[in-house]
Amino acid sequence: MIPRYSRPAMTKIWEPENRFRIWFEIEAHATDALAELGVVPKSAAEALWAWWATNPAIDVAAIDAIEAVTKHDVIAFLTWVAEQVGDEARFMHQGMTSSDVLDTCLAVQLTQATDLLLTDMDALLEALKARAMEHKFTPTIGRSHGIHAEPVTFGLKLAQAYAEFARGRERLVAARAEIATCAISGAVGTFANIDPKVEAHVATKLGLSVEPVSTQVIPRDRHAMFFAILGVIASSIERLAIEIRHLQRTEVLEAEEYFSPGQKGSSAMPHKRNPILTENLTGLARMVRSAVTPAMENVALWHERDISHSSVERYIGPDATITLDFALGRLTGVVEKLLVYPARMQKNLDRMGGLVHSQRVLLALTQAGISREDSYAIVQRNAMKVWESDGALSLLELLKSDPDVAEKMSATEIEDRFNLDYHFKHVDTIFDRVFG
Amino acid sequence: MIPRYSRPAMTKIWEPENRFRIWFEIEAHATDALAELGVVPKSAAEALWAWWATNPAIDVAAIDAIEAVTKHDVIAFLTWVAEQVGDEARFMHQGMTSSDVLDTCLAVQLTQATDLLLTDMDALLEALKARAMEHKFTPTIGRSHGIHAEPVTFGLKLAQAYAEFARGRERLVAARAEIATCAISGAVGTFANIDPKVEAHVATKLGLSVEPVSTQVIPRDRHAMFFAILGVIASSIERLAIEIRHLQRTEVLEAEEYFSPGQKGSSAMPHKRNPILTENLTGLARMVRSAVTPAMENVALWHERDISHSSVERYIGPDATITLDFALGRLTGVVEKLLVYPARMQKNLDRMGGLVHSQRVLLALTQAGISREDSYAIVQRNAMKVWESDGALSLLELLKSDPDVAEKMSATEIEDRFNLDYHFKHVDTIFDRVFG
Amino acid sequence: MIPRYSRPAMTKIWEPENRFRIWFEIEAHATDALAELGVVPKSAAEALWAWWATNPAIDVAAIDAIEAVTKHDVIAFLTWVAEQVGDEARFMHQGMTSSDVLDTCLAVQLTQATDLLLTDMDALLEALKARAMEHKFTPTIGRSHGIHAEPVTFGLKLAQAYAEFARGRERLVAARAEIATCAISGAVGTFANIDPKVEAHVATKLGLSVEPVSTQVIPRDRHAMFFAILGVIASSIERLAIEIRHLQRTEVLEAEEYFSPGQKGSSAMPHKRNPILTENLTGLARMVRSAVTPAMENVALWHERDISHSSVERYIGPDATITLDFALGRLTGVVEKLLVYPARMQKNLDRMGGLVHSQRVLLALTQAGISREDSYAIVQRNAMKVWESDGALSLLELLKSDPDVAEKMSATEIEDRFNLDYHFKHVDTIFDRVFG
Amino acid sequence: MIPRYSRPAMTKIWEPENRFRIWFEIEAHATDALAELGVVPKSAAEALWAWWATNPAIDVAAIDAIEAVTKHDVIAFLTWVAEQVGDEARFMHQGMTSSDVLDTCLAVQLTQATDLLLTDMDALLEALKARAMEHKFTPTIGRSHGIHAEPVTFGLKLAQAYAEFARGRERLVAARAEIATCAISGAVGTFANIDPKVEAHVATKLGLSVEPVSTQVIPRDRHAMFFAILGVIASSIERLAIEIRHLQRTEVLEAEEYFSPGQKGSSAMPHKRNPILTENLTGLARMVRSAVTPAMENVALWHERDISHSSVERYIGPDATITLDFALGRLTGVVEKLLVYPARMQKNLDRMGGLVHSQRVLLALTQAGISREDSYAIVQRNAMKVWESDGALSLLELLKSDPDVAEKMSATEIEDRFNLDYHFKHVDTIFDRVFG
Repeated sequence: MIPRYSRPAMTKIWEPENRFRIWFEIEAHATDALAELGVVPKSAAEALWAWWATNPAIDVAAIDAIEAVTKHDVIAFLTWVAEQVGDEARFMHQGMTSSDVLDTCLAVQLTQATDLLLTDMDALLEALKARAMEHKFTPTIGRSHGIHAEPVTFGLKLAQAYAEFARGRERLVAARAEIATCAISGAVGTFANIDPKVEAHVATKLGLSVEPVSTQVIPRDRHAMFFAILGVIASSIERLAIEIRHLQRTEVLEAEEYFSPGQKGSSAMPHKRNPILTENLTGLARMVRSAVTPAMENVALWHERDISHSSVERYIGPDATITLDFALGRLTGVVEKLLVYPARMQKNLDRMGGLVHSQRVLLALTQAGISREDSYAIVQRNAMKVWESDGALSLLELLKSDPDVAEKMSATEIEDRFNLDYHFKHVDTIFDRVFG
Repeated sequence: MIPRYSRPAMTKIWEPENRFRIWFEIEAHATDALAELGVVPKSAAEALWAWWATNPAIDVAAIDAIEAVTKHDVIAFLTWVAEQVGDEARFMHQGMTSSDVLDTCLAVQLTQATDLLLTDMDALLEALKARAMEHKFTPTIGRSHGIHAEPVTFGLKLAQAYAEFARGRERLVAARAEIATCAISGAVGTFANIDPKVEAHVATKLGLSVEPVSTQVIPRDRHAMFFAILGVIASSIERLAIEIRHLQRTEVLEAEEYFSPGQKGSSAMPHKRNPILTENLTGLARMVRSAVTPAMENVALWHERDISHSSVERYIGPDATITLDFALGRLTGVVEKLLVYPARMQKNLDRMGGLVHSQRVLLALTQAGISREDSYAIVQRNAMKVWESDGALSLLELLKSDPDVAEKMSATEIEDRFNLDYHFKHVDTIFDRVFG
Repeated sequence: MIPRYSRPAMTKIWEPENRFRIWFEIEAHATDALAELGVVPKSAAEALWAWWATNPAIDVAAIDAIEAVTKHDVIAFLTWVAEQVGDEARFMHQGMTSSDVLDTCLAVQLTQATDLLLTDMDALLEALKARAMEHKFTPTIGRSHGIHAEPVTFGLKLAQAYAEFARGRERLVAARAEIATCAISGAVGTFANIDPKVEAHVATKLGLSVEPVSTQVIPRDRHAMFFAILGVIASSIERLAIEIRHLQRTEVLEAEEYFSPGQKGSSAMPHKRNPILTENLTGLARMVRSAVTPAMENVALWHERDISHSSVERYIGPDATITLDFALGRLTGVVEKLLVYPARMQKNLDRMGGLVHSQRVLLALTQAGISREDSYAIVQRNAMKVWESDGALSLLELLKSDPDVAEKMSATEIEDRFNLDYHFKHVDTIFDRVFG
Repeated sequence: MIPRYSRPAMTKIWEPENRFRIWFEIEAHATDALAELGVVPKSAAEALWAWWATNPAIDVAAIDAIEAVTKHDVIAFLTWVAEQVGDEARFMHQGMTSSDVLDTCLAVQLTQATDLLLTDMDALLEALKARAMEHKFTPTIGRSHGIHAEPVTFGLKLAQAYAEFARGRERLVAARAEIATCAISGAVGTFANIDPKVEAHVATKLGLSVEPVSTQVIPRDRHAMFFAILGVIASSIERLAIEIRHLQRTEVLEAEEYFSPGQKGSSAMPHKRNPILTENLTGLARMVRSAVTPAMENVALWHERDISHSSVERYIGPDATITLDFALGRLTGVVEKLLVYPARMQKNLDRMGGLVHSQRVLLALTQAGISREDSYAIVQRNAMKVWESDGALSLLELLKSDPDVAEKMSATEIEDRFNLDYHFKHVDTIFDRVFG
């Protein structure tokens, strides 16, 4: 966890206090169920909740001090709770194993984290939609291989990002379902010492589903899937970040990250406005993605469990979710405040002397009866002249004076192929598909 | 693609012939739709299908020869088809761009591959279920950290694997939906030169959905998600493979891969039966997983597309699906023919002098009114003696003669805690959850 | 292995015939040593070499057919050789284990592959050096964050690439040393049945060093290091590829991949010249890098060996070396034939109205006694005007008419700061460092 | 950075205070050189060092507060230093760019980190050597595929680990050389505003070499190589950790992690002694390795630099080095205190009824004139009986009574093949190779 890439709400989920609060709730709900089953006295559960109703502070330092002696975190916690609640607390954790608490707690933390990420996603989607609508018909050049291709609108670029993050949101919902399970099944998952009803009760109370078959732990293919989904979303962040970095290049300059008046771009070059937020997002995407491989390596635990996954999760649980939360927030801000320069977009569109319309002319020639190969050759020889003139020559004028073209098409027919609106006639269709 | 790790049905999907067949179908269906829209003559579409109805051989070498000149694969293909079909073929590909064909074809190939993988999964699930039912109540020791914990059944181990692969199957269905989309939207995705109805028609005919907004290509977050899901499934394969490798260890020997009479285990040590299939599966899992990172790196294409993803997909498209198909098939065979040794499982269960029952005694003492800490100490001191005797001493006998225990529990009550069936009373519940 | 990304010399190393040839040499040299030690008759070794001297064809199909029965590759090979050589061949492989042959063979193949890669590297370095010298003083804008910064020369960019690949070459030499070891130490590495002198003899004959302590296999940390080094080199390829892709962007167009007259850039847009080779190299770099993680996962073999590494190496051994060989060759071609446009470089340099000289003015003002903060503010306010004019205004003129500047610097002194040569005075120094 | 997986000395390297101290030294040494060159007054350098000589506290909070306004870390630092030192400080940083400071500082931090890691390695190597010597001739079974193979000594296992970590140490020395370079070359690496002599002076003072050609930054292939090497070392840690985990399995129990008397293994199963340290090391290895891919993705910065690498390095710089430092320390402790059970090793060796000697018998039969195939068949048929008896039958006795064997070998000759010392005759040779 790097403070500068962290936001408080997500960070809090991973702090010891939140973990201990969840532990308590798991234990107390379990005690309720055990009392209902007659395994422990009802007074035990009541004592726990009575104490909890006082909204007690969690003394993390005290629990840590006990753990330093017992070298066991759950025992330390139970000991501390017993100190607070008194004798009735001895009925807690009856028939449970530490992993029942730890794994169910992780499930709760990951669902809390996912809920935050879903909120982040919604904000990003809203920002993308608003800017997409704003620039629905702002013409800009579409590029393949970094080379001018044909016109698109800036709104289409943002609609594409919207659709991609909308998919990301759906995947996140699936990720939540993957990890939102509860396991209270004892030392090797057989419920030998605890009735499955306890698990069912705790699951219901915590908004989790029941793990159909656990070992000592919840199977880690779930977590692998979860982090893989975060990695895919991070890759989508990288994509949009790289798009913006390209647009802000000096030679392109079709858009810029918002630049606050007091901000210094560089200690040496005062004129510089650098896309540092999106460059930063590129790096953060790499980090979120770096959690995927260790999460997959965690799946193959030995027999009913080994603890190799635990240290990995101590890192990637907080790091991947905190970093992704921060990155989504940062990206939302970048999108919301992005400075967009339609005039420059038009200027870039025009700079190639009309080459972007060559495809239309090619089709027109084909339809006028010239073979595809010949049409291609005709357009290409004119296009090459324009290209080599670095935009000084105009494709339109060259085509008009090309006898092979003139033979098949009138000047007006040719001019007709250079109309920008032709390209945008299906923008509405696409927006309907994306925004419904 | 490594021949020894490949099966014909999956390999065929990735051979040039299948690719060219799919290309033709995309082009011909598109020509149908273009004809319907009046863009090209109906005779053009009819000519294509008439030729196709002759079930023509695809001359891969001829197409390759054309590509060697044009340096463009789709143009080479179109040229070859035109040579076969004649003049009418010039209406093909009207308003389309190469990527329309290439990306939609990849979508078809990946769905074909996924359908095979789903069949593989079904076979594996069936094998796991059959063996799980067979060994539903075969007692075996559950292990955490590689150390004996408490009894489970061998069927439970397999039920766990079943549930994990059933999740894998669901993810595979999701993976299929991710990549089963069609894009025929032109050079930069605006449908400038082709009506969206063409895309819709081709999608319907090929069983794909329509990509809501494409650029020149189908967005690669879909493929990243696809390969990530394969990676998670591979990790589950690794897990089951490692379980079997552990069980086959000389000291454990609770199960063995089937060993055909003629097979030589080693050139030097004729007595050896090595778990080489599951070791191999461990390696294959690493390979399937290795596709995940490049697939994620492919997402951030520049602007409306660059072609960096293409070479990556030429490797991982075939390699990851072929390897996973082979691995699932191999694993299914291993499960089906696995030699299981219940007698040895029981022997291993017994070798620890009853230590596996310590948890039950601990609980009983607590319920008899001894504090958790004292109960723990009592059990631990006896357990340690057994442990240090390497199974020579019996925990049951020691506990019976421990006065602190005897004070609270009768010999019969203690013996009662050493009953194996106690651990299996919820096996039915778990099986119901898993197998429904 | 993808044929289109493969070159014959490297591919040949990984073909069965080469493997079998190496196997024979290992076995025959070992037999020599065994004969020298008196373990086997000298006639046995002589018989082997006598047959080898006939330059016999290796019948791969025949060996495969035997393997199909024995299910053991080395036994199959030995059987086939025995069929060719006759009775004396039974002394081969005395005291050896299959892995002695397999692992030493892999070492030979990897060193052969590395030797090719070193040759590739030399060609790339030569190309980079030639083009760096050619453009040692070709001015071009240096960019940070994609934004114009200060002038560099195009030669400096290439010198940077040269230095990076020179480091890559050194790492490759280290990689070769890592994997060029020989192990002939028997089933568990104890030399129980074979004298260490055999290993030493074979190592010398094959140009390998002796593995100080092997288990059944050569330790895989060596291979992990090897593939990690390939991954770093691939990343350097990606870097140069991305530089060229940037330079070829329509708006930048300072350099282009060579475009052969007959080449079609796109089926739809005949004017397009796409940097597809460098985009392809970007993808190939991802693939070479994808070998790193499985190679590292291969290190932790169980006890004296398991065979999980083997399938991984069947993929990544050929794939990573063949792909890297191809990529280095392709990159060399790109560099050699790169079309460089100095006029366009100068045009881009000039387009920012002199903003690139702002740092020099800033320093001059500081040296003229204005505080750093005030100097910064003065330069920034003028720079911002230029920036917002999109190059229409000139920083030089604005500064001359800024009273705060004029107070401290004469017009000539200001103009002096706009001299391009100023930036290149240490280019010689840098070239001396890099090219010696 | 996870506190429980961190040690103070390494953590300190990554704290802001250490970073600011290094920044000061870079700036002050540079000012010395600038003064020597006559660019700035000598009094400026003197003022800096005079203040430094007072051993001033670094007020991290104050610097952070300035950064919150300027949004630029180096400017914030320079401002704070200027506040402390006074007017003379304005000559600092003359002609330098932020990256000159940041990248050189990172080089210093990474070399400091590497020096600690080298010390860690030495301690680990010493521990391995001591235990290897102690158990040089402690017999234990060698295993391939998890199956008993032939005898080795426990010392050989440790010698193998020693040799592997000795290679790791050499790689670490190479890693240090990779990243120990200094770049003070200005905004785009041309030394336009700063003499290369400044760089040379600072490099000498800080014990770094000079970066031959930098852009704005030190090229990131160096860092990629650095983290890749850490990843390989982590993989070696994983290997030894997994070996120990295997040895501690209940059924094997040839060694155990030290278990302190007060330690509780499990809240439920008091008899358990779990190899949690080595399981933890397995997880930590995954984490160190997870830095490799993002470090490689960092190489391809755009043009003369983008800042995408920076956030990645903020994570992996501390995380990978701190985690590896901790892991090496933990592994050293595990090795030093490892409980080794030679009696159990012998017991395991004996449990297979002498099957481990089958290879020797096979050779003897071959040497006695039976064909390899027949020898193999004879040994295998007897070996299979032993195997199926689960150790109840003795291979020695079976062979003695097998007429095909008896025909060629006397009872004494057969018994001779069952002598353990036979396997250890070259242990001295191997130890000499490894420990010199």
